[in-house]
Amino acid sequence: MLRVRRLGIDTCHETVAFLARRCPLYRAQEFVALARIEITGGGRRIVATLNIIDDDAMMAADELGLSLLAYRQLGLPEGAPVEIAQAAPPASLDHVRDKIDGAVLPPEAYQEIAQDLVAHRYSKMEIAAFLVASARFTTASEVLSLTRAMASVGGRLSWNGGDMIVDKHCIGGIPGNRTSMIVVPIVAAHGLKIPKTSSRAITSPAGTADTMEVLARVDVGSDEMREIVAAEGGCLVWGGHVNLSPADDVLISVERPLSLDTPEQMVASILSKKLAAGVTHLVVDLPVGPTAKLRDRASFVRLRKLFEYISDEVGLNTVVVATDGSQPVGRGIGPWLEARDAMQVLEGNPSAPSDLKERAVLLAGHVLEFDPALRGGRGIVRARELLESGAALAKMRRVMAAQGPAPEATHAAALTRDVLAPRAGVVTAIDCLRLARIARLAGAPMDKGAGVDLFKKIGDPVQQGEPLYRIHAGFEADFRFAVRFAADHDGFTVVRS
Amino acid sequence: MLRVRRLGIDTCHETVAFLARRCPLYRAQEFVALARIEITGGGRRIVATLNIIDDDAMMAADELGLSLLAYRQLGLPEGAPVEIAQAAPPASLDHVRDKIDGAVLPPEAYQEIAQDLVAHRYSKMEIAAFLVASARFTTASEVLSLTRAMASVGGRLSWNGGDMIVDKHCIGGIPGNRTSMIVVPIVAAHGLKIPKTSSRAITSPAGTADTMEVLARVDVGSDEMREIVAAEGGCLVWGGHVNLSPADDVLISVERPLSLDTPEQMVASILSKKLAAGVTHLVVDLPVGPTAKLRDRASFVRLRKLFEYISDEVGLNTVVVATDGSQPVGRGIGPWLEARDAMQVLEGNPSAPSDLKERAVLLAGHVLEFDPALRGGRGIVRARELLESGAALAKMRRVMAAQGPAPEATHAAALTRDVLAPRAGVVTAIDCLRLARIARLAGAPMDKGAGVDLFKKIGDPVQQGEPLYRIHAGFEADFRFAVRFAADHDGFTVVRS
Repeated sequence: MLRVRRLGIDTCHETVAFLARRCPLYRAQEFVALARIEITGGGRRIVATLNIIDDDAMMAADELGLSLLAYRQLGLPEGAPVEIAQAAPPASLDHVRDKIDGAVLPPEAYQEIAQDLVAHRYSKMEIAAFLVASARFTTASEVLSLTRAMASVGGRLSWNGGDMIVDKHCIGGIPGNRTSMIVVPIVAAHGLKIPKTSSRAITSPAGTADTMEVLARVDVGSDEMREIVAAEGGCLVWGGHVNLSPADDVLISVERPLSLDTPEQMVASILSKKLAAGVTHLVVDLPVGPTAKLRDRASFVRLRKLFEYISDEVGLNTVVVATDGSQPVGRGIGPWLEARDAMQVLEGNPSAPSDLKERAVLLAGHVLEFDPALRGGRGIVRARELLESGAALAKMRRVMAAQGPAPEATHAAALTRDVLAPRAGVVTAIDCLRLARIARLAGAPMDKGAGVDLFKKIGDPVQQGEPLYRIHAGFEADFRFAVRFAADHDGFTVVRS
Repeated sequence: MLRVRRLGIDTCHETVAFLARRCPLYRAQEFVALARIEITGGGRRIVATLNIIDDDAMMAADELGLSLLAYRQLGLPEGAPVEIAQAAPPASLDHVRDKIDGAVLPPEAYQEIAQDLVAHRYSKMEIAAFLVASARFTTASEVLSLTRAMASVGGRLSWNGGDMIVDKHCIGGIPGNRTSMIVVPIVAAHGLKIPKTSSRAITSPAGTADTMEVLARVDVGSDEMREIVAAEGGCLVWGGHVNLSPADDVLISVERPLSLDTPEQMVASILSKKLAAGVTHLVVDLPVGPTAKLRDRASFVRLRKLFEYISDEVGLNTVVVATDGSQPVGRGIGPWLEARDAMQVLEGNPSAPSDLKERAVLLAGHVLEFDPALRGGRGIVRARELLESGAALAKMRRVMAAQGPAPEATHAAALTRDVLAPRAGVVTAIDCLRLARIARLAGAPMDKGAGVDLFKKIGDPVQQGEPLYRIHAGFEADFRFAVRFAADHDGFTVVRS
């Protein structure tokens, strides 16, 4: 038998095993063509992708090396005896093959696929096959099946029976759109329960979890989260510990590198997580604009209808709101800069960005209308009142205190370069994708103080040579990358007036 | 800068790089979401998938580990300084995205895709995306573009101008169908040039290269191959050294594990390799049967027409022949057993399997009809004459001598178990897939003497308890696997007569 060896290799959502080419027990080459092997021992069984090792220093010939995820999943100690065999593909891959052939899959098929995804039985290429086959053609009832299936495998949050649990979610794509940090305290100050879990940025310059982490600890487990929500009515924590819809996380690990972002996957992804989080009432923010994820009214309507249909079927009370997605929101892009904007709004600072404030009031208003006492348009009035009275700020301070202090003190990154207007005129467009890219190149979100600080927005007049925005970076290499990219693609359109 | 470190890890057609999580120069985590990085140094540039290393013993924090393929591709010595950056996806991935959206791609798009495939710029999930998007919908003119593109990137064999270069190819799926080993000597004995390159088995119990290797060396480079063909008119060598249509090899590394086997990919794969091999006249063997790749007449006709259309367009003179795919051909399944069958046919041994002989004569006859002197049905007569006169056997012996002795002596594997008829009656069906699986479990093709030896074929009467076939294995574990599988799925249908 082979002996288990833990190798410190992180292969990101794929289980990988390593076998010596000169292994005396198995002929490694034999397993390579089909790539996936089944590992059994001590009553446990996992599936992994096989790599072959030619380096004797790395592993003994009678060992089976396991990547971190594979080692964790198998759950046996180092040295434990295991056997390997060519893995049969996961049974649910037959459904994927039917999907490739154009079939409409029944609910059970999605259930089996979600279970195999969560058990890491799919290789990345099998996941890609599922996603691409689905991207070509997926019915609304299939989206429903996938949503239910993904919500049903993994963790679930439960709340006191009968409580209304509200939430607000944006599909992303607009830099600086950090309204959750204002909506949550407004809504919690009103007395509704809003247990907000957020992601860290994957391809954007900041996620709400990254931004909140400038102000407080976000690395909070689900028990602690429940305590905070019981005490304060709301929280702003990272969703990583809560394990909601882990099948979706597996799909995302392939969607991102492939830049696959279909409406069907998006709706199933978001709503499965909300279902698993025990949310009952949801406001969805869909920005529409020339460089947003939704570029026109038709795409918006299509996505809205899909959100509404699936929500109805799974019993979620969902309101979909179209917002302006023509340019970044607020001034800052990057965790510290965005946290600064949000706090300025909460503090009633006269220089707070008014677009961020108005957007947050609008969305909070929609959430508050779930309160029967505020129906018929009184939500927005109440939201403004809670913000401008300082009640939301006081709530935010209590939530921050409950979550605990930020892991590190942050400030705006010190290396700066202003990007200047090439001519006098009026700003007529700002490219969200380019500004996001510049902020990421500058180091956001890993470097919390890095990013872009906007001085001009659409409609603003500018003089030639006047600063359009400032790049902040903490590291020389990042700074160079960002400045170089911005020199070629500043992302602003300035038209002579 | 990072320093290059060669890691002895074989990741099978995917370039992989390894970065320490505590690397002081780059934040490894930052690169993970998009998976692919670009590595530059010394004027070289490659793209690789990134894994993160947590084990200090494996690699220093300022090193960049490279898998064998990545190290070879980059071509810099260990210790050479390199930089990394998030890789932009290969430019041709935009075409893949268009394909996912249902577009018909122009020839240039396939050219760019083939170039990026050969340069290993695609990750396995990107390759899967291309294959699945194509599986859903590909026009004949796209197959043509892909065929041309794949043939144009990689090695090419050239022959004396004006020579007719003939070949014969089977799409596979039928165990024991080793006709090439008889067709090549017949055709070469007649005087046509047939430089046959074959693959080793990937998912089947034997490829022609594995089987020929029982009799002679097949590991022959292209210069030596040219000499052998100049002297003998034919050869039977492994295609691995010739690097024909390497883009196809990259696609196959994902097609196999996904069991994607569309007519479009099959035609592009086969014809691109033939084009690159300088073949001018080709006979394609398409077996049709209930457990063959082609299950009915309609699938056969569709595939035949596609072969004919693409061949016409690229200037290949191709004849497509339907053959019986209802059961294995000959008796043996596995390299040694199949080589034995082929030699018995060539030697005129009275116990030689007649189905293998007749099939080889038919296919050789079609090839010989490319000779203008034999047109109009005289090919098959000439083929039989060359076989039965011993001319083909003499040619085979000369080809074997020219290629050199087999790397090791093989005989039938010693562990045997007979699988018995469960009842008296008549054999009405034999499942090709199950018999192939039993032979593979028994150790074929790695263990050349392993496999299955059939005693009965369709139409044969059997007594209860009479042996249907014998399993041969060389290793205890393989033997157990094969016997256990055969006990549940013997692959034979015996109907009481």
